[in-house]
Amino acid sequence: MNDKKINLLYIDDEPHNLIAFKAAFRRDFNIFIAESASEARKIIDENDIHVILSDQRMPVITGIEFFESILETHPEPIRILITGYTDINAVIDAINRGQVYKYLTKPWNENDIRIFVRTAHEVFMLRRENAELTQKLMVANGKLEFLARQSLLS
Amino acid sequence: MNDKKINLLYIDDEPHNLIAFKAAFRRDFNIFIAESASEARKIIDENDIHVILSDQRMPVITGIEFFESILETHPEPIRILITGYTDINAVIDAINRGQVYKYLTKPWNENDIRIFVRTAHEVFMLRRENAELTQKLMVANGKLEFLARQSLLS
Repeated sequence: MNDKKINLLYIDDEPHNLIAFKAAFRRDFNIFIAESASEARKIIDENDIHVILSDQRMPVITGIEFFESILETHPEPIRILITGYTDINAVIDAINRGQVYKYLTKPWNENDIRIFVRTAHEVFMLRRENAELTQKLMVANGKLEFLARQSLLS
Repeated sequence: MNDKKINLLYIDDEPHNLIAFKAAFRRDFNIFIAESASEARKIIDENDIHVILSDQRMPVITGIEFFESILETHPEPIRILITGYTDINAVIDAINRGQVYKYLTKPWNENDIRIFVRTAHEVFMLRRENAELTQKLMVANGKLEFLARQSLLS
């Protein structure tokens, strides 16, 4: 698997975190960065984002609130929250409600991020492939049914 | 999703860990336990195990060695290693070589185990569904091709 093809969006209100993140992982993934929820929404509207990592503590809305806000319009990207140990109960709750897929606690280490992103990407691709295969199978079965009905009529 | 349907095998050479694990998660998953690699192999031969959690430090073979030994005969179950911080480099290496899917560090907490097992189970099911859908699609396409060839001949 060529990890470079993983489109990863990282959201954090602290610009130096965004720069550090990009510097650490630019060789591993295609990285998009956003300083705010509105910036992030614009990026996911315009790009095929596979995995989103968001900081939990941001000034306008939290990471969980952001993930909740995109659930209906953008259900596909795998949502990973980066959070401090103090928020764990809220995070578990958000995972159980399906808003967050996984969480990473701070301070994260680079290898954990790589493993989390790769496995999240596999889930993303498997879900997408499943949907495509199901679609193709419906089309093929529809054709077979049509032909079976035709041969019954003739 | 009914988590009770997740068939989870936990391997640890310390019997009291096995008992504690089973007590903690018996309401969440169908739990199988094994005190050794040979016991574990017997269980995966006889049951449809979805997720395997193994302790890394065991007297005869390590968790990584166990996972490596079942890769060819039982590639399907998702393999999660439980390990101390001291073994991390060996673990990262094992993940990169595909022997281990994820790792959890000790001391683990119950919520982490639940999240890890559920997401591992989703990957297991998605991979299995993908294989089944691909198989069904091949059959359907084979039939369509056969019918197309027949109608060309007639």
